[in-house]
Amino acid sequence: MTDRIPCAILGASGYIGQHFARLLADHPTFAVAALGATERSEGRLLEEIWQLAEPPPSELEKFRIRRWSPAELSRRGIRLAFSALPSGTARDLESALVRRGISVFSNAADHRMDPSVPLLVPEVNGEHLALLGPPRRGRGILVTNPNCSATGLVLSMAPMMDLLRPKVVHVATYQSLSGAGYPGVPSLAITDNVVPFIQEEEEKLERESGRILGRLRDHRVVASPISFSAHCARVATREGHLEAVTVEAEARPGVSELRTAWRTFDPLARLGLPTAPHPPIEVRDEPDRPQPLRDRWAGRPTRARGMATVVGRIRWVPPFLRFFVLSHNAVRGGAGASVLNAEYALARGWDLTGGA
Amino acid sequence: MTDRIPCAILGASGYIGQHFARLLADHPTFAVAALGATERSEGRLLEEIWQLAEPPPSELEKFRIRRWSPAELSRRGIRLAFSALPSGTARDLESALVRRGISVFSNAADHRMDPSVPLLVPEVNGEHLALLGPPRRGRGILVTNPNCSATGLVLSMAPMMDLLRPKVVHVATYQSLSGAGYPGVPSLAITDNVVPFIQEEEEKLERESGRILGRLRDHRVVASPISFSAHCARVATREGHLEAVTVEAEARPGVSELRTAWRTFDPLARLGLPTAPHPPIEVRDEPDRPQPLRDRWAGRPTRARGMATVVGRIRWVPPFLRFFVLSHNAVRGGAGASVLNAEYALARGWDLTGGA
Amino acid sequence: MTDRIPCAILGASGYIGQHFARLLADHPTFAVAALGATERSEGRLLEEIWQLAEPPPSELEKFRIRRWSPAELSRRGIRLAFSALPSGTARDLESALVRRGISVFSNAADHRMDPSVPLLVPEVNGEHLALLGPPRRGRGILVTNPNCSATGLVLSMAPMMDLLRPKVVHVATYQSLSGAGYPGVPSLAITDNVVPFIQEEEEKLERESGRILGRLRDHRVVASPISFSAHCARVATREGHLEAVTVEAEARPGVSELRTAWRTFDPLARLGLPTAPHPPIEVRDEPDRPQPLRDRWAGRPTRARGMATVVGRIRWVPPFLRFFVLSHNAVRGGAGASVLNAEYALARGWDLTGGA
Amino acid sequence: MTDRIPCAILGASGYIGQHFARLLADHPTFAVAALGATERSEGRLLEEIWQLAEPPPSELEKFRIRRWSPAELSRRGIRLAFSALPSGTARDLESALVRRGISVFSNAADHRMDPSVPLLVPEVNGEHLALLGPPRRGRGILVTNPNCSATGLVLSMAPMMDLLRPKVVHVATYQSLSGAGYPGVPSLAITDNVVPFIQEEEEKLERESGRILGRLRDHRVVASPISFSAHCARVATREGHLEAVTVEAEARPGVSELRTAWRTFDPLARLGLPTAPHPPIEVRDEPDRPQPLRDRWAGRPTRARGMATVVGRIRWVPPFLRFFVLSHNAVRGGAGASVLNAEYALARGWDLTGGA
Repeated sequence: MTDRIPCAILGASGYIGQHFARLLADHPTFAVAALGATERSEGRLLEEIWQLAEPPPSELEKFRIRRWSPAELSRRGIRLAFSALPSGTARDLESALVRRGISVFSNAADHRMDPSVPLLVPEVNGEHLALLGPPRRGRGILVTNPNCSATGLVLSMAPMMDLLRPKVVHVATYQSLSGAGYPGVPSLAITDNVVPFIQEEEEKLERESGRILGRLRDHRVVASPISFSAHCARVATREGHLEAVTVEAEARPGVSELRTAWRTFDPLARLGLPTAPHPPIEVRDEPDRPQPLRDRWAGRPTRARGMATVVGRIRWVPPFLRFFVLSHNAVRGGAGASVLNAEYALARGWDLTGGA
Repeated sequence: MTDRIPCAILGASGYIGQHFARLLADHPTFAVAALGATERSEGRLLEEIWQLAEPPPSELEKFRIRRWSPAELSRRGIRLAFSALPSGTARDLESALVRRGISVFSNAADHRMDPSVPLLVPEVNGEHLALLGPPRRGRGILVTNPNCSATGLVLSMAPMMDLLRPKVVHVATYQSLSGAGYPGVPSLAITDNVVPFIQEEEEKLERESGRILGRLRDHRVVASPISFSAHCARVATREGHLEAVTVEAEARPGVSELRTAWRTFDPLARLGLPTAPHPPIEVRDEPDRPQPLRDRWAGRPTRARGMATVVGRIRWVPPFLRFFVLSHNAVRGGAGASVLNAEYALARGWDLTGGA
Repeated sequence: MTDRIPCAILGASGYIGQHFARLLADHPTFAVAALGATERSEGRLLEEIWQLAEPPPSELEKFRIRRWSPAELSRRGIRLAFSALPSGTARDLESALVRRGISVFSNAADHRMDPSVPLLVPEVNGEHLALLGPPRRGRGILVTNPNCSATGLVLSMAPMMDLLRPKVVHVATYQSLSGAGYPGVPSLAITDNVVPFIQEEEEKLERESGRILGRLRDHRVVASPISFSAHCARVATREGHLEAVTVEAEARPGVSELRTAWRTFDPLARLGLPTAPHPPIEVRDEPDRPQPLRDRWAGRPTRARGMATVVGRIRWVPPFLRFFVLSHNAVRGGAGASVLNAEYALARGWDLTGGA
Repeated sequence: MTDRIPCAILGASGYIGQHFARLLADHPTFAVAALGATERSEGRLLEEIWQLAEPPPSELEKFRIRRWSPAELSRRGIRLAFSALPSGTARDLESALVRRGISVFSNAADHRMDPSVPLLVPEVNGEHLALLGPPRRGRGILVTNPNCSATGLVLSMAPMMDLLRPKVVHVATYQSLSGAGYPGVPSLAITDNVVPFIQEEEEKLERESGRILGRLRDHRVVASPISFSAHCARVATREGHLEAVTVEAEARPGVSELRTAWRTFDPLARLGLPTAPHPPIEVRDEPDRPQPLRDRWAGRPTRARGMATVVGRIRWVPPFLRFFVLSHNAVRGGAGASVLNAEYALARGWDLTGGA
């Protein structure tokens, strides 16, 4: 235990913050040393503000939530923070942390489109980490993970890029309640209903997907030329975002090639990252999968539960490839994404202990 | 009452059959004279097998369900039948009825693609009624209404055809539980879940839409050259099918032209059909509509509740027009569709009393 | 229209406030002249803040919500107000209205236990109106309706009082989401869940039931000696509170007597009140009724939809009478209750126009 | 592995049958050697008929379901069967198995009230095992577990018996969808609804609770003199039966005595049974627990997840003790109950290998 890297969870009282706590409670590399939140939760125990269906991790349930300034965290020797800060708050606070020498792995949207900040899905665009440039003394790094609805999509696209040469990607989402955090969607708004609108979601999905699938050129990301067109809707499921995807493709591969491409995709296979699922994409052959209820916790080994993306109902009538894709919005598309990003950065040689 | 046309409802014990009963209970032109179903429901009162949330119509609640052969119906002087028969049963039974001189307005899929049978949505392809040819003595006519997921789509497309010159229509559906009838979807299969598969639904949606939007040539329907591409999924709403639509268009009209086209569309305006909604398409300007819970009962006047199709979230970034469309699957996409078809046929001069 | 009594709805932006608007929009006796709410909704149209599944009444959808002081209402000539004010706010504001000569019919809890304020369910304790004493010049009257979970219970008990001589009433509730107003219960808190706690609900149910079933003595209500024991829980239904009731009785009537008592109960039969349901209690004989989905809108005539209380599953094994009772929490247990109270007060000779 | 006792699961294709498979897949003492079901599932793999949200156990997912006669099982050397057979089928088939020398631990209702068959909850009435009498050569034993709604109730009552001296127990249930098996409740019957009726459930709850809490006298169970009075209702939760309990008591213990009695109750503490939860009753102090979503999987150690019964909202106003109790209907109230019964019988010296 002595050599686990101490870290802070910021925005710990929210839904994603609690998933961070769940994932980091017994993490082999990172050890939670601080839980930060705003005044509303200040002074409360993690168990008192817990809202997930699963019980709070026993290691952390008596952990007290505090308001932490970057300076205080720094004084405590913390050089690594996971951010589930709300949009708006995240922009300045994350920048301040970085200036204090604290590396931030963030689920917040604020810095995702900053040219020098990697918007990272390690299996898809691990090379974007190069945007960080060389380590700078006394300064942390900032790495973001994408919006929950973009994550599953880009993962499912990654093995298809060369094979299909996609021109247009049409996607319609069936997003879960937890995507809106807690308290989030009022029950009267969604019981026996679908809400075909999520603030700014279509824009995020489209522009973030383009950036993640883009190429590095001269230390910049050139967005993918693929045209993304999204419909985002909320349905009454608890967790797991399902998406109906139609890809208009230039190439004409065979169906079995497509399946093989998905099934053999595992660019992180040899890195030994604790939270990386192997394989990262599971392909279901049943006629009616993936389903949020049954597939949201896909991912092996046990630590990577909820980290696999599940693809199914593959129908290929050129030029249109159609399929459904599912991923757990709060794990693969939230807290787990940033935990994996931190593991990946570490494996790529970044020092997250501030020892540099 | 004396001059209302007597009619039978076949398949009266099912979900669509009950909507037929609801709509026909106090209809100004038609009067229910027989409720038919299979042996399972034989002898029971309508109120005993009632499954809709609304109470059974008082006019019919004590009406007894029987097994009716075409010959018996004919002997009773019935020349008009509404069919909510299950697929499989419908094919032969509907044909037998027609041969007995009974006109059938059917929600069943079996005859929808028959070259000489109109697949009718009066606002969209009223002229397809001409497929019936001239009246034939002693023989009824057979008119079908489309699948519940195709109905809203073609209605929303109809006013766009000349304006947009659509090439491809991508649609992803959020279909309600009642689309599967009763008992239909087990609660354990759908609570906290989405099921991205409905047997044969994508095929029906695609081929029926093409036929309805097709043109008459030499007493045949030439299917529309538009390419339809569908994803169909079941969500946990009770009634109302929501659809996310993306149209790839050749033309480049202005946004206001599009809205005006939808809002002013009302080809049945002057026919005085009791169940026709005016307007048939309602356009919502709020950022988050249409919603199944709030918009499924759209339609004026009162008798046409659930008959209007609701369009919203219109976004036009050429060449892609995106919007959501909603219609009540069991009314506009089911029983109400066939009732309207019968009213329309009557207005177009067809004799449904067998008097010919 | 000229002789409808002008009235204000206070707390109009909330769930009960909207039900008031729905019920009063085309009321034969009352005419909405003002919609009041707090700053958050000030200046907005009723249609803009509308949250019910039903569309807003066309008569009022363009009506603008304002902040109204008692003095302003008074200057406008308003002498009647329906209150859906939140607890806390209601206490002082309702008192101020009364002092200004405005009569208040309130759904708020604040004054329900005041000795001189009737807590009224006209079919049950109409005589409690006498608590008001004689009319006082320049002063309005204040009449409250009970908590939504108490209403159905006391209505179902009323015809049983002499017959059963109840000693103890055990009740367990299955309360709907709308009982908590809007936004109310977060969807993540209740989807796939039951919450066995509603703040202060058991206390209200017990003490209000005792007061309503109490007797007038010396211008005071002496609470019923019945012991009430409640469990209150929230379930994921939209509207309609279901309750499982067990009455420990002293008397031993026959079952048919009990049924007859419920079915023939109609103390308001001759008063001609527009919102009074006839009969006020409907008894269902099916083995599985009442159900929130199917029975919440019980009540005839049309204007009284949602005002009837539905009783079913009657089992009488002395000394325990068991049954289920359902009533619409926002109608019979909310807005409709106060509308009926106003109609009843008017019929009993109270002047609600301030003309006195 | 070599010394795990081979066992059969009968009725393996149903919801409880699948929970048996889940619990026995890697059981330390028992090894699944046969999965039996009717012709409908014959020949299919376990994974093909799987309906639980959790994935099928990898150890058994390729296991093939067959129709097994008692003779065939016997020939295969199987001396232990877990029964999730449907009522009706169970009576004769379980008797036949016993005659063949196969011991049966059954969740079926058919034999629960047989005078010589233990209806067993080991923590509550372990001594009822004595009903079996001495082992009989060539004959298996038959032990049943109670109805899912009775289990949580009797567990919560057990530590209260001497302390409270209960006279009457009133209970109202909030039962989950899985209590009805698969396909079970149609989604249209329960979405936005509560159904206040479950066939024969109140009767089972009442009579089984009386038997379990009864005393052995002369090799017979004399039912408890407590009067049980139940209301059973179905709500739209997936798993976990919640119950509102009111106990009318003769004694007047202090509140802290009651809590201590619940918290220290653990009669199986020293037996080392793999599926026994320690403690068997968890007491929650929060104001709004237990909840099905958050508490159904209570139970430690990991193997005993879903086996603990959770009590909360304890209110003691003599003579009425009120509380809520929750237990997982398919685990503690189903498959887990019989697995625990088998472990208990083994610990009490019964030979389940047929070696006797």
